[in-house]
Amino acid sequence: MRNTQVILSSRPVGVPGAEHFSLREVPVGTPGEGQVLVRLTHWSVDPAMRGWANDVPNYSPPVAIGDPMRAFAVGDVIASRHPDYAEGDVVEGLLGWQTHVVVDAAAIARKVTETDLPRSYALGILGLNGTTAFFGLTESCAARSGDTVVVSTAAGAVGSAVGQIAKILGCRTVGIAGGAEKVRQCREEFGYDAAIDYRGEDVAAALARHCPKGVDCYFDNTCGPISDAVMTRLAQGARITICGTAAITEWDPLPIGPRVHRQLLVARARMQGFLIFDYRDRLGEARAALAGWLRAGRIAVREHVLEGPEAAPGAIAMLYRGENTGKLIVAV
Amino acid sequence: MRNTQVILSSRPVGVPGAEHFSLREVPVGTPGEGQVLVRLTHWSVDPAMRGWANDVPNYSPPVAIGDPMRAFAVGDVIASRHPDYAEGDVVEGLLGWQTHVVVDAAAIARKVTETDLPRSYALGILGLNGTTAFFGLTESCAARSGDTVVVSTAAGAVGSAVGQIAKILGCRTVGIAGGAEKVRQCREEFGYDAAIDYRGEDVAAALARHCPKGVDCYFDNTCGPISDAVMTRLAQGARITICGTAAITEWDPLPIGPRVHRQLLVARARMQGFLIFDYRDRLGEARAALAGWLRAGRIAVREHVLEGPEAAPGAIAMLYRGENTGKLIVAV
Repeated sequence: MRNTQVILSSRPVGVPGAEHFSLREVPVGTPGEGQVLVRLTHWSVDPAMRGWANDVPNYSPPVAIGDPMRAFAVGDVIASRHPDYAEGDVVEGLLGWQTHVVVDAAAIARKVTETDLPRSYALGILGLNGTTAFFGLTESCAARSGDTVVVSTAAGAVGSAVGQIAKILGCRTVGIAGGAEKVRQCREEFGYDAAIDYRGEDVAAALARHCPKGVDCYFDNTCGPISDAVMTRLAQGARITICGTAAITEWDPLPIGPRVHRQLLVARARMQGFLIFDYRDRLGEARAALAGWLRAGRIAVREHVLEGPEAAPGAIAMLYRGENTGKLIVAV
Repeated sequence: MRNTQVILSSRPVGVPGAEHFSLREVPVGTPGEGQVLVRLTHWSVDPAMRGWANDVPNYSPPVAIGDPMRAFAVGDVIASRHPDYAEGDVVEGLLGWQTHVVVDAAAIARKVTETDLPRSYALGILGLNGTTAFFGLTESCAARSGDTVVVSTAAGAVGSAVGQIAKILGCRTVGIAGGAEKVRQCREEFGYDAAIDYRGEDVAAALARHCPKGVDCYFDNTCGPISDAVMTRLAQGARITICGTAAITEWDPLPIGPRVHRQLLVARARMQGFLIFDYRDRLGEARAALAGWLRAGRIAVREHVLEGPEAAPGAIAMLYRGENTGKLIVAV
């Protein structure tokens, strides 16, 4: 039995491309006392992986050259020497881009219990993406019924969940996405009250039209020109959550943009960085709510599934080019 | 009896200078039913007056050309036709740069009751400046014992109060000010644990030295290069309060600077605009605490008093050039 790994083979600056990874086959290990062997079936592709691959100060240490790429993954326990796990359990965690892994039980994030829902949901709507959307919107943005909520990367894995949760909470939702197809998805699949195509429209003018009372909550995954436009439309007391920085390709030196200070001051608004890891003790709360809405058909999910390990190396760059049409997953 | 007014005679762009004001004498009015006549003795000079004089979107409408400049002022009631006020009462409010004013009782912000303390304190440490420092630090910055608190314009009317209140709360305090004399004041008069001269030192390097655990709270009155340096030293969960924008001379178009998004994201920090008017119902709470600390000798106050109405027109520009050596007051 061989373990196919996608390893980080050179250090990228900015968005890692296919050339920064290579495939390797190694023997599958044997679980020791307290360990389990997992056969992974689905790998996640997330924006945060750019940061993990870069050697810059970040909220987690960079992946070492020669190591399997750090990634969320889900799979089946095929051997266990830990009493909490048995063969056949489905588990999820930061288990890496590899087909097999032997880990201490503590390295498993959780046993996937929503077995009536597609297993890949554990990596998206019931994983990093959905829980990020849930707490980013309800806690960091403190969205309340009646608020106007603007979402960038609105058709993305996180954004589409934010828009749909906001709608469930009674908010007016305005999505910003790139291209006619994503705008269509926002309106028809994700239920946004309005959607703006940043490639084809003046975002500030469209926001003025769609947010007549201003923007109460802005859930941002871009941090570039789209955000600059939203900042001109803040309602008093607005809450801006910075969840991702997709519009920024390089962080060193810091990119330059309009200073936000005065806009925050005049609106008495707050802009706040959000990282789901700070909510690690409350993830079950978000998952329970999300699973309930999924079962009730109140949240739609789109997935974009790539086939096989050889599809993984180019996947992060694909995500940053916005070419995926749903939560990006590699099925292995 | 004549009323000497300092009127806004032309519309400034940016910081108003002496050339934007002129002096005028008009007859003193007679209070009607429900009105009082106040002889003002001290006028305040505040950074917010720049915004009031400019014709740009702001949190209050611009002062009309030909009107007395909007300003906080304190004085004696010399005639009253309102049951709540009697001759001899000391009152304070947004009563303008003028020696006399007839106003509805509702236009008076409050009766000054701390008559054991200098009357001019009503315009500074017990007025806009002190209450701004109090709520900006305790609520917006949410400063707690043990936090490292960095203050810009640290020797100023607001900054010096922030530093001293933070010290009383048990914080480590680091002030940033311009020039050796202000740095000396920070250390010797306002009790900062450390003070940085932004004119003579590399602020980021000095912060690294003085804030070994990073910056938990940043109370900012500048929004320029000093802030850019502080943003490189944020502790996890840092709170940045934007109280003033002294480093920015023009807001339209927005000035350009390093994007703060990623720094906020990595530190899960929040940056928030603060305006004391949002705390108008709680000002008594701040005043009671401040008056207690003043009486106990725990807060030092510096005032810079200009003499006579003719000193007022150039006073705002003086403030923005940083030439005042304490809370700037015009005694009339």
